Amino acid sequence: MSTRVRSGRRPGDSGTRDAIRLAAGRQFSELGYDRASVRSIAKEAGVDPGLVTHFFGSKQELFAQAVELPVEASALMPHLLGDDRDGVGRRVATFLVGVLESEEGRRRVTGLVRAAASEPEAARMVRERITREVLTPIAEGVGADRPELRAAFVGSQFVGLVMARYVVGVEPLAEADAETVIDVIAPILQRLLTEPIFGDAPPSAGLQRGG
Amino acid sequence: MSTRVRSGRRPGDSGTRDAIRLAAGRQFSELGYDRASVRSIAKEAGVDPGLVTHFFGSKQELFAQAVELPVEASALMPHLLGDDRDGVGRRVATFLVGVLESEEGRRRVTGLVRAAASEPEAARMVRERITREVLTPIAEGVGADRPELRAAFVGSQFVGLVMARYVVGVEPLAEADAETVIDVIAPILQRLLTEPIFGDAPPSAGLQRGG
Repeated sequence: MSTRVRSGRRPGDSGTRDAIRLAAGRQFSELGYDRASVRSIAKEAGVDPGLVTHFFGSKQELFAQAVELPVEASALMPHLLGDDRDGVGRRVATFLVGVLESEEGRRRVTGLVRAAASEPEAARMVRERITREVLTPIAEGVGADRPELRAAFVGSQFVGLVMARYVVGVEPLAEADAETVIDVIAPILQRLLTEPIFGDAPPSAGLQRGG
Repeated sequence: MSTRVRSGRRPGDSGTRDAIRLAAGRQFSELGYDRASVRSIAKEAGVDPGLVTHFFGSKQELFAQAVELPVEASALMPHLLGDDRDGVGRRVATFLVGVLESEEGRRRVTGLVRAAASEPEAARMVRERITREVLTPIAEGVGADRPELRAAFVGSQFVGLVMARYVVGVEPLAEADAETVIDVIAPILQRLLTEPIFGDAPPSAGLQRGG
């Protein structure tokens, strides 16, 4: 590897990759997608910009790897669905708020949601990785009608919470403790996932469209 | 006015200002704050970029005027609060969804929410113009505890809906009809505005903080 590494970081590939990914995660989270640059990320990681491109290809690729959620969706399902349908709202609320309480989780999710405001690839990741792979299987698992639409509403809860609490910083929600947030959103998620919420919805799921 | 006006638009100040504001609103809404530029907005409006600066000063100022909500908050209160506390959730839901159903309202709100992801001035506008001036007075008007925190949660509902339905485009929420959206969120807003939602909240509003 001939590209120079500036900050005394060990030149091993995996250490350097991790340093770049960490710097990228922080900058995408704090500056948003457009204001973070390969150059500024390389600077923070203490490497040459060419090395970022060498390891990750495009800025878009780097973004995708930096905000990748640190959980495997399929591994979560049994826990989130649980044994009792009545507790699913609280389990999902506790899980989602819990991800945001960890510094690393908050950084990745905030980076992803911020970027989704301008970058189509980030918007696609929100749709795929959060709504389709995590929330839709939960809605399907509890067996309610129109699981995809329910999952989309749950997704809008999550994105709204991330935006209001961490990005826009609406007080006093931004400083509310995690337990209060869980207390408020758990019944909302329970309702969205299990109760009859569509005024005149037929039991056949997901087929009706609006005009 | 010596600056040339390119597209046959009448050179009157107010017509030109309106054309710039309209182009700005469209670009902020569709591209996001960072990707819209004074140059591209001027081009769409058919004017010299210098004229944009002349009329609006900075890009930030132009943004503020382009996304300014077309309603006076204080004028809305009597209608939204209404006579019956039981109907407040549906009235607020109908109003918020209604703003997003009009092309002009959707453009302004989407532009504002997208920009709030990266631009502090836009985030401040969401906090001030939506949460503090519209939603907090409603929460205070219905007389529940912790009106500011309730208003912040209602704000997160609204921001989440805008992001999921219009910015991220989560299906099938993006294509759901307005009535379905109102049916789903009205009871959530009713609950957030009027019901006991804080597990162990004391009646004294807004003083407790989390750690």
